[in-house]
Formats: sequence, C-alpha cells, structure tokens
Amino acid sequence: MRATILLKNCSWVITMNPREPIIKGASIYVEDGIPSVVKDRVEADIVINGKGKAVLPGLINAHTHAPMSLFRGLAEDLPLERWLREKIWPLEAKLKPRDCYVGARLSILEMLKTGTVGFVDMYWFSREILKAATEAGIRALITYGMLDLGDAERRERSLKDAKEFIEYGRKLGEERVGVGLGPHAPYTCSREMLEAVRDLADKEKVPIHIHVAETRHEQAEFEKKYGMREVEYLAKIGFLGEDVSIAHGVWLTRREIRELAEYDVKVVHCPISNLKVAVGGIAPVVEMIKSGVSVALGTDGAASNNSLDMFETMKIAALLQKHHHWNPAILNATTVLSMTIHGGSRILGRDMRIDGEAKCDIVTLDLRRPHMTPVHSGETLINHMVYSSRGSDVREVIIDGQLVVYNGKVLTMVEEEVLKEAQDTAEDIIRR
Amino acid sequence: MRATILLKNCSWVITMNPREPIIKGASIYVEDGIPSVVKDRVEADIVINGKGKAVLPGLINAHTHAPMSLFRGLAEDLPLERWLREKIWPLEAKLKPRDCYVGARLSILEMLKTGTVGFVDMYWFSREILKAATEAGIRALITYGMLDLGDAERRERSLKDAKEFIEYGRKLGEERVGVGLGPHAPYTCSREMLEAVRDLADKEKVPIHIHVAETRHEQAEFEKKYGMREVEYLAKIGFLGEDVSIAHGVWLTRREIRELAEYDVKVVHCPISNLKVAVGGIAPVVEMIKSGVSVALGTDGAASNNSLDMFETMKIAALLQKHHHWNPAILNATTVLSMTIHGGSRILGRDMRIDGEAKCDIVTLDLRRPHMTPVHSGETLINHMVYSSRGSDVREVIIDGQLVVYNGKVLTMVEEEVLKEAQDTAEDIIRR
Repeated sequence: MRATILLKNCSWVITMNPREPIIKGASIYVEDGIPSVVKDRVEADIVINGKGKAVLPGLINAHTHAPMSLFRGLAEDLPLERWLREKIWPLEAKLKPRDCYVGARLSILEMLKTGTVGFVDMYWFSREILKAATEAGIRALITYGMLDLGDAERRERSLKDAKEFIEYGRKLGEERVGVGLGPHAPYTCSREMLEAVRDLADKEKVPIHIHVAETRHEQAEFEKKYGMREVEYLAKIGFLGEDVSIAHGVWLTRREIRELAEYDVKVVHCPISNLKVAVGGIAPVVEMIKSGVSVALGTDGAASNNSLDMFETMKIAALLQKHHHWNPAILNATTVLSMTIHGGSRILGRDMRIDGEAKCDIVTLDLRRPHMTPVHSGETLINHMVYSSRGSDVREVIIDGQLVVYNGKVLTMVEEEVLKEAQDTAEDIIRR
Repeated sequence: MRATILLKNCSWVITMNPREPIIKGASIYVEDGIPSVVKDRVEADIVINGKGKAVLPGLINAHTHAPMSLFRGLAEDLPLERWLREKIWPLEAKLKPRDCYVGARLSILEMLKTGTVGFVDMYWFSREILKAATEAGIRALITYGMLDLGDAERRERSLKDAKEFIEYGRKLGEERVGVGLGPHAPYTCSREMLEAVRDLADKEKVPIHIHVAETRHEQAEFEKKYGMREVEYLAKIGFLGEDVSIAHGVWLTRREIRELAEYDVKVVHCPISNLKVAVGGIAPVVEMIKSGVSVALGTDGAASNNSLDMFETMKIAALLQKHHHWNPAILNATTVLSMTIHGGSRILGRDMRIDGEAKCDIVTLDLRRPHMTPVHSGETLINHMVYSSRGSDVREVIIDGQLVVYNGKVLTMVEEEVLKEAQDTAEDIIRR
C-alpha cells in the first residue's frame, strides 16, 4: 500500500479533463495512484505545499534511445551518414550491457527531473534499460531493438532473444514497465523479419515501435528499392495495427496518413531530432491530427537532440508547425499539451487525466519564476506550459502514486552517483 | 573600486579567445571587470567555488522589447495581423511609464538568471527601461522607439523626445547602459523620419536599431509601395552604416547581404520569434556569415517568444540552419556561440573574451546536471553550451566586475518583489 499524498493549496490545476480543464486554487489528493481534486481538509501520509505551483498530468517522451545519453555532445555538426558510420556505429559496437544500464539511468534521471513520467525506448541490451526503469520508478515501454539487414541468422537470433526478453519482462511483473518489440525500420529489417515481428506481437500481445519515414534520403532510397513508400509497404505486408507506434513519420503522403488513421497506428513526432539530423522536411502533424491519427511527441536519443526535456520539445513542435504553414494559429498550446500527455499515454496503454477516477501520474511546476510571470488566466497558463516553461521548473513528480521527485530532487536514485557512473563509463567506452 | 572576485578551481573555462579557446581546470580572477586565467594562488575579496562549473563570456540578447514580458502568454496562436490589431496594440495604448519599468525589471530578472549579461532594447517609455537596467547592473543599449506613419507632427515630437532621451541617458552617466535611436521599421517610418534619425545619430554619435525584412507579407507590401526592397531602400537614402543594427533580416537577397556587409551593418537573428510569428522563411544566417556580415542573436519580446533564454535561442538558431540547408554540418556550435557573444557585444560596442586584457562579463554554469553529462572533452563542452544547456544552469553572473548573480540568485533585485509587481501590474493593465 502506497503512502497517500496531498498537494495542498495548489495555485492552479490543469486536469486535461475536458469537463473541467483548469481549476484555480485546489488541493490534489493521491491514493492508489489516482489523483482527485479536493476542496475540503483531507489527511494524508505526505503533505506537500502547492502554493505558487501548477499541477498537471506528467509528460510522456514517446521516442528515445535512453543509453545514447552517454554519447551526448560527442559527435556533432556532421552529415548523417558520416555521423552514423564514423561516430555512432563504432561507438555502439563497443557497448557492453552495463553501459546501457548506466546510460539509461542518466537519461531517466534527466527525464524525471524535467517532468517526464513515462517513455518509449528502443535500443540494445533492453534488459538493462528495463532494470534501470524499474528501479527508478518511471513508467516505460521498453521495446527490444532488432534489425537483420536481410541476414537470416541474425534475424533468427534477434527473434529468439526478443522472445526471451518479453518473458523476462513478464516475470519481472512490474506493471509500470511494459515490454515490446522494436524492429529498427522498414529499410533495415527484411520483410521476413517484419512479418515475424508482427506474428510475435500478436502471439505475445505486446506493442511494436518502429522508425518510419524519417529522412528524405531514406524515403527516396526506399521507393527506388521497393517501388512503394514505407507506410504503403507496411500496410501491404500486414504489419500495421493499433499496437504499432511509428517514430518520425516525416515523409508521408495524404494517402499514407489515411492508412495510419485507418489502422489506428500511433505516430511519434520528434521535432528537435528532425531539425538536428536535417531530415529535410517537417512532419505533417496538423494533417495527421485532422485525419484522426493519434500523435505523440518524443525527444529521440540524446545524441540527436541533445537534451531530453519534453517542455522544449513541446515548444518547438508548436512553433515548427506555425512556421511550416505560415500560420501562427495552426496548432495551439492545448493541442500540443494533449499530444504530449494523451498521445504519449495512449502508446503506454493508459489515459492520463486528473478526474478522481483514473490512475494518472502528475507533476508540479513552480510558477514563481520570471519566465512564468505574469499568469493572466487559466488559458494563458496553458500557453506558459508550452511556450515558457522548461524542465527545470518541475518540483514534484508522482508516478503510480509514488513520490519520485520532491522539490526538484529525484528520490529513487542517488543523483551524484548516476552522474559519476555516466562520466566514468563514457570515458571508458572511448578508451576501449 | 569594485571588490575583486576569484572563481576558484573551475572545471572548464571557455575563453572565446582564439589563442587558447578552452582551458581545463583553472581559476579566474576578476579585477576592474577584467577576468584573467590564474594558475597560482591569488587572494580576492570574494571567492567562489568553481568546481563542477564552466566559465564563459556572458550571452548578449541583441533584440528585445523588455516591457512586453507583461503580455507573456496573453495573446497566442493568432495570425500576426489579428495579434497586433486586436491584442498587442490595444494593450500598448493603455501602457503607462511605470508599467514599462515593471515589465523591464521582470525581463531583466529573467535575463540575468539565464546568463544574459547585456541586451539591446527598443520600446516605449525608454527612460523607465534605462532606469531598470541601470539599477539591475546589466549591460544594455536602450534605443528610443519611434515611428511616424507619415505624420509630420508625430515625427517632430518623436525626434524631440528622442533627443531629450539621449541627453537624459548621457546625464545618467552609466557607462554600462548606452542609449540609441530605435526607428521601428522602414514601413512604419517615413523617409523624412529615417533621414532625420540618421542625422541625429551622426550628430549625437549614438547607434541605431531597426526592424528590417521580418515577414513575407511586409516584404511584398514594401516592394509594391516603394518599388524596391527594404535594404536597397535604406542604402539608397543613406541610412546604413556600421552604427546600425537590424533585427530579423529574414527576407534578404544576395545583393542586399552584400550591401549589409559593405556598410558593416549588424544583423540580429531572432529564430524563435520568426517561427512563432510565422514570418514565412528562415533568415539567411549562413549566407550572411559567409559574406562577412556580423550576425548576433536575440529573443525578441516575450510576447512573441515567450521566454528570454538565450541558450534556447542558440540551440534553435543552430538547428534551423541545419534543417533549412538539409545539412547538419552547415553551422557548428562554436560559430553559434561566437554569434551570441561576439556578434552581440559588437553592437554594444565591446568585444567579449577572457584574455586577461579586456573587460569581459562572465557567467558560470553548473555542469553537474544530467543533461550536461558526460563531458568528453573541451570541444564537446562547446556542444553542450549550444545543444544541451539552458538558462537554469547558470550559477553566477559577473558584469563589469560586479557579482550580479550568485548561486542562481540575482543580488541586485528582490526577486519576489519583481514577480509580485509584475503580476499586479499586468492585472491592472487588463482591468484599465
């Protein structure tokens, strides 16, 4: 039984509940992971002063590669091909399981401190990432990274390992941390592999996460080789479904967007990574939303971002669409906040809103800061969330009813230890 | 005589001095505003622990409208014309001098806390902004905002007031805070006005700051009305010179860029505002740098950004050029940092580098944070400055030899008072 928590006299509550989206002046009582708005006096095991703070459902980072934080800042300002071939792939070839644990802990520390309550991951040594997430008390979907580049032996080994990973995760039995399959992309996984992944996902009832239509070059090469576009191809081979989330989705046609909507495929927009990698275009976020596609936001790995602050990602997501459409009104702050919270939580299999009924992870933000001043109204507070606030404004994080961050400090990890381990490990990888 | 300051055992020093750009492990001694790298033991009036910190020259925000922080979040997600006509202009019509003082203080508080040591401003009630900057210990160039829309009476009044403002600033005699002329834009100021401003600037030896070529619509309308582009026009009427800095410069031809370089006009790129206002294009930053134009960075006012964090602006400036050119290598972190520090300080009339000879304002950043970990080398530390760090990492700010921010707290203002004043004033403006 978790301790009950009272966030007392919060200045503002953003519920993300359409019935009463914003409440001025209220306390939030959390029991069994369910936050309720309370106006009377309530007793609780833990009481936290909410004065000068805003409470809202936590943010979801729906696409990242957590261990890549070890490569932060290491390989910059290079063309994508050279970045991968000369820097990232040689580094990844040196990685040991323990490195991925250490790197995942570094990323989880950053995410928790910046108000991210859950993340979707795809990388190597997934058990280590799973372990790091489980220990830290964050919500996560850890998908098992796999690719075969047409090599049958590699494919079989990947599929066998992925199956074992799913069993391992199930045995761990931590409801907060789900497991899934992470075939890298349609251009790095053979048709046989994608079909086998689809079968395995159906059999094991686990979600799939995959990169799709990220760069202009990839799009052109794929069409040349397969005679069709990536989403068309995935639809044709029976890969798509409501359990599939695709990262990026930059190079999509209207027809492909309709297909994504039809199959209820979730899309994770990663605006900062897209700019940094120079994918050559801007994802059709507005068009996807209009067509009924559920869109989430992600940071991508720290090597291509380089931070994991979802407040920053929200701002840039909103601004890029305004720019792209020559229209400042095209995508408003409420929609972007909803993408981040609801779009992301749909991939994690849990809807997030403060309604006194559902489980919901929540965060508090300090409003007594110059960039959050003045607050004119509840509506303008939503604008602050997207356009002014940043991860460093986060004071508390409560995940599944557990107080994980208090007054900006992560309670489930020794911060200095995580930073030191990460520095030492990064130096060690370079030396190897 | 200022107190001497020793930043002891700093982990890294970014000097921005090409002779020795990055030093690992050094102390910085500041006397008379001149920071020197010292390796021996030195006594000082104030000793600050630099362990785990990086020291670098402070950032310059080369285009803002400081009092507009009072409108933060108030009018969002609207087309530019409606935003101006329905929201901003009616609000501005209600402004009193005291409001501008309060709003400027709010912005200066945010800028100081996020490592901005100097700013260029253009707005109304400039004396109040000058007063706020002088009191707070920040460096600034306050330009007197003016426009005539072809109205001769308004023009004469503006010019008279501007002249008085320059005298007022001179009498104040604060070397840190300069005064200048801020004709709004070529499309809001008549030719007579621009010529009179040019004459006044020559006579009084003060710099000029002006908006040029911001939006696609403005560009088209200007060409229709004047039969030429904005920079061509300004060159033709003899307005351009090395004392002129232009904000935005999005819609420029190669020929106009050559003209800017020829006259040594400084350009202030405001990437976040450009996206938010949806100006329709991306400023030709790479082309300007290649042509020898000195480019600085700015946030623009908080109403169109909505924060004044120059670390955020640096990151987005770098990423947008990569995106725009389909080339992640097109603009590297060192160049962006140099634009921000040198590009900005050139407009303020002072070069900024840590070389033991020149006056230089400096800031420290805490590196012991997840998003700043690991630090692989001095070179990757520069990447962290542009791609990972944010204003909230700033611990100390020393301007003109004075410790203005210590351990994240502004020493020259009572923070709570500034926030409360701003909140009360903003509510009062709406009620009027």
